[in-house]
Amino acid sequence: MNILVINCGSSSLKYQLIDSESEKVLAKGLCERIGIDGSQISHTPAGGKKVTEKIEMIDHVAAVDAVLAKLTDASVGVVSSLKEIDAVGHRIVHGGEKFASSVVITPEVLEAIEEVSDLAPLHNPANLIGIRSCQKLMPGVPMVAVFDTAFHQTMPKKAYLYGLPYEYYEKYKVRRYGFHGTSHDYVSARIAEIFGQKREDMKIIVCHLGNGASVSAVMNGECVDTSMGLTPLEGLIMGTRSGDMDPAIIGFLAQKEGKTAQEIIDICNKKSGVLGLSGGLSSDFRDLAQAAQEGNELAATALEGWSYRVAKYIGAYAAAMNGVDVIVFTAGVGENNVTARAQVMSYLGYLGVTMNEDANTIRGEEVEISTPDSKVKVWVVPTDEEMAIAKATAALV
Amino acid sequence: MNILVINCGSSSLKYQLIDSESEKVLAKGLCERIGIDGSQISHTPAGGKKVTEKIEMIDHVAAVDAVLAKLTDASVGVVSSLKEIDAVGHRIVHGGEKFASSVVITPEVLEAIEEVSDLAPLHNPANLIGIRSCQKLMPGVPMVAVFDTAFHQTMPKKAYLYGLPYEYYEKYKVRRYGFHGTSHDYVSARIAEIFGQKREDMKIIVCHLGNGASVSAVMNGECVDTSMGLTPLEGLIMGTRSGDMDPAIIGFLAQKEGKTAQEIIDICNKKSGVLGLSGGLSSDFRDLAQAAQEGNELAATALEGWSYRVAKYIGAYAAAMNGVDVIVFTAGVGENNVTARAQVMSYLGYLGVTMNEDANTIRGEEVEISTPDSKVKVWVVPTDEEMAIAKATAALV
Repeated sequence: MNILVINCGSSSLKYQLIDSESEKVLAKGLCERIGIDGSQISHTPAGGKKVTEKIEMIDHVAAVDAVLAKLTDASVGVVSSLKEIDAVGHRIVHGGEKFASSVVITPEVLEAIEEVSDLAPLHNPANLIGIRSCQKLMPGVPMVAVFDTAFHQTMPKKAYLYGLPYEYYEKYKVRRYGFHGTSHDYVSARIAEIFGQKREDMKIIVCHLGNGASVSAVMNGECVDTSMGLTPLEGLIMGTRSGDMDPAIIGFLAQKEGKTAQEIIDICNKKSGVLGLSGGLSSDFRDLAQAAQEGNELAATALEGWSYRVAKYIGAYAAAMNGVDVIVFTAGVGENNVTARAQVMSYLGYLGVTMNEDANTIRGEEVEISTPDSKVKVWVVPTDEEMAIAKATAALV
Repeated sequence: MNILVINCGSSSLKYQLIDSESEKVLAKGLCERIGIDGSQISHTPAGGKKVTEKIEMIDHVAAVDAVLAKLTDASVGVVSSLKEIDAVGHRIVHGGEKFASSVVITPEVLEAIEEVSDLAPLHNPANLIGIRSCQKLMPGVPMVAVFDTAFHQTMPKKAYLYGLPYEYYEKYKVRRYGFHGTSHDYVSARIAEIFGQKREDMKIIVCHLGNGASVSAVMNGECVDTSMGLTPLEGLIMGTRSGDMDPAIIGFLAQKEGKTAQEIIDICNKKSGVLGLSGGLSSDFRDLAQAAQEGNELAATALEGWSYRVAKYIGAYAAAMNGVDVIVFTAGVGENNVTARAQVMSYLGYLGVTMNEDANTIRGEEVEISTPDSKVKVWVVPTDEEMAIAKATAALV
């Protein structure tokens, strides 16, 4: 079954066409600057070269139109007609409490996604535009919504309620939701498969460490806690996001800087994290490692603070589950940054973690990086959110 | 040496007169509603009954005057003249980065306390008024400032820096400070004494669980991390304080409720925590336990959320130190709430914690509550901040 996976932002649209049975990516690409001057599409067919073309895309309908044209193009296309696209899977950032799993999109579903848009005002409206654009150009093709928050909906109250007046939960649904759910689900399911065990019988901590980053605790086959919260700001120190901090800092900095709380929160999202800690040097871990090696103290501190925070979350979730069997690293940094993984593991000897130094030189592959006698096992499992979305979509249509 | 210990709030003043050598409390009391209609003093001499008297106290000088009158009173007094008070120890909430230990108060010290007042705008100015009032009425008596933040000044950068732009640390000293330092210091030193070991050789987690609550990690004889931050809002769920939450919630709630960020932060400080989670029922753990037993689900959830957060911090700090030898409970809830301690410990089997059920029925006493074969030891050690302040003061004068 050929599934078109769409991840739609306010001025961008990422796509992959995936054969869900063979698990092959047939083509992938990206539309940028939609509705802005200088919009362009980059498209890569499987085994072929990436082509980039400047096309005027005045809106997302135009972008989807460009994507479909590329997919069916005589030279760079991978299918002969739109009929060969069996379904579309849409990544939706926030499902609120309404969606604990993927669903076939109906008018009621669209309405429900709209209703929780105030929880993700930057993302959900863009996701909805993506759905409506596809519906316009691909009438009759079944579409599925796959939510970043869905996997985390199994968290118990003790994990998802903040220490706030309960009425804020009742009135505005202020609670922990968590994100990257598709990845946490995929990686924890995969690790159970690797171990030949049921996920229900394992205690797993998944560290999804990319530019955005989150940790989750998976027990009894379900997510029981995760580090992102109402929004993707909470938790780990990330590329540009602060993660956890004293909430009183928002008011303190707003007053000191003469800014609104929302402006400070924007800075916490976009100019903080390792980028901010390094004095604005870079949000890229390779740049920071290089700078640290050349004696840049701020870069070194940023990396130390980053790995320390990851280690503390692993420790917290080991307590949350009263133990842990496997710790898994995934996403860009988790899959490729050997030093970062080693730094995190250096805190975990007390759990019985012993690192396999040779294995930990491997990047981007499924590999055990703990020693055979390590009491708690540590693995790298590359994530594949698009593949997970494609499979979830295929399963529903 | 007789030390008068003063803890001065904006409209209240707590005091104890302590013989620092015999460690005896000679008298203690409280002035309330200073500068407000209906001000009163309660005074209890050692071994005597508490007397409460309505006295007009138009300012803190009047309050200190009333305290000194009570201490030297013919019937309820405990010293014959002010000459028998050798020194005054003042509890100061925020010492910023300027004070890593207690100091004898000089004009320069007063100035430095004033300079960091924007970090604790409700507390430091009141503390300063207390010092100045005592100086006025007790000229020539040496005075010492003992800071809530001092013990935590040893934290490394990876623990005290937030994932924020580094300039906010440089410009405004935005960082983790931590509070309850006198208690964390006292309790961790006492546990080393009990074990007959050097504190330098132990990994200790101190859970100071009162209406305000914080956890600290003590390694190499020093604080290496603590749960409160720039302000006492961060960390655990407390009686009325939220503790950790997605910082974006401040902006979200301000917008939803039509309030300023500072108003929301006030709610996070005063109407949140277990009080807020229980739907406004109570900030008192005994009330909540009673209500939970009678089937009140919100009360039960508040207590579950509270203990879950404590357990996660213990887990995080075990990772921060790559291990833990002793976990210590202290302060009101930690010393007396048997159920709360048991709930926290129920998460910690993976560390090798085994609870001694009989021992854990004991309240308010120094007692080991883990079994003899428990790999990690768990103790209750009553805290005594006033005694610690008295001893710190005596040591300096």
